[in-house]
Amino acid sequence: MICTDKNCFSPETVRRLAVYLQNFERLIKNGVDVVSSGQISKLLNVSPEQFRKDLSYFGEFGKRGVGYQTESLVYELKKILGLNQAWQVALVGVGRLGCALLNSQDFSELNVRITAAFDSDKKNIDKTVNGIHIHDIINFKKIIKQKKIRICVISVPLDHAQAVTDLAVESGIEAILNFAPVILNVPENIHVSNMDIYCELERLIFFLNK
Amino acid sequence: MICTDKNCFSPETVRRLAVYLQNFERLIKNGVDVVSSGQISKLLNVSPEQFRKDLSYFGEFGKRGVGYQTESLVYELKKILGLNQAWQVALVGVGRLGCALLNSQDFSELNVRITAAFDSDKKNIDKTVNGIHIHDIINFKKIIKQKKIRICVISVPLDHAQAVTDLAVESGIEAILNFAPVILNVPENIHVSNMDIYCELERLIFFLNK
Repeated sequence: MICTDKNCFSPETVRRLAVYLQNFERLIKNGVDVVSSGQISKLLNVSPEQFRKDLSYFGEFGKRGVGYQTESLVYELKKILGLNQAWQVALVGVGRLGCALLNSQDFSELNVRITAAFDSDKKNIDKTVNGIHIHDIINFKKIIKQKKIRICVISVPLDHAQAVTDLAVESGIEAILNFAPVILNVPENIHVSNMDIYCELERLIFFLNK
Repeated sequence: MICTDKNCFSPETVRRLAVYLQNFERLIKNGVDVVSSGQISKLLNVSPEQFRKDLSYFGEFGKRGVGYQTESLVYELKKILGLNQAWQVALVGVGRLGCALLNSQDFSELNVRITAAFDSDKKNIDKTVNGIHIHDIINFKKIIKQKKIRICVISVPLDHAQAVTDLAVESGIEAILNFAPVILNVPENIHVSNMDIYCELERLIFFLNK
């Protein structure tokens, strides 16, 4: 029974699939061809039931008593997640965090890559960080359309996040990963994911304080 | 009707409260004493109904026709979120991301602060980043107990995240903000929040690919 409505399971399932993928890619690199359900469970810190359930939304994987072939799992997970093709990502705001994001990219591994960075500060424009050219934000729309980029990471100060978002939406961006501590106003068809570190710490504190 | 069970509303509510707080603190800094419901709605990109609902879990705020006093809102939000006291945070892993986190701290503003950083790499140990001393990880337990730190940010490579987590739990840490792409195995009473950037991008791609 395959669930074809991608909304019918939680975002946490998708996060776990992404984690599985990263870990199985690592196994392949370490020369592991086949893993048992028990080994997976230990490696990933999920119960065999959880692992099977997460995959079961998308089909049948592994053989009873034989286990899972890592190559084939990676292939299937990439297909499920849409990672069997390359995805370009734009980054707006090359401050400390933006810079760390650019520097943390390992280009040999990912098929999700920041391929264009933008800033409005003259001292950053036309510089290069980890091989990525930093463009003037005024050229955003032109470059996004040229490169057909659909995803944008926003790491600008709070005050500028909505303006950048408006520009992104106007330029055809469909998904935004937002690091600014604001609630972005976007049309319904735009996907937004928020990752503000201090908001996240405050959320943890709230639960600690219970 | 005040909800006293803090589990009865979504984590998204708590995130919004944290966002409200950051924005109202900004208003005070800009000399704004009173805001109307309409101004709040425009500033925060939430409907007046959503804003009222988020606060209503905790009591009655603002005066009909008068609006909200920013000072009093900040006071109440801090109380709700447990931020009327200072919280110390430990950071393990002073690589690129860890370094960016340390550098991004503005000490004049936050009562949530990374006050101790740890690494296992000799070339980082005993250095100082933005005023924070980097300790040898072997002293983690001692320092955590000394400083009575309850929250830990983990920004170490995938392979080391579980070992650091085990050490953190053993040392009395109760909440973990994890940047590694792994599912951490922790006792039930430990709060974990995951912030892996590539997992998050992959999740967005999954929905784009729909």
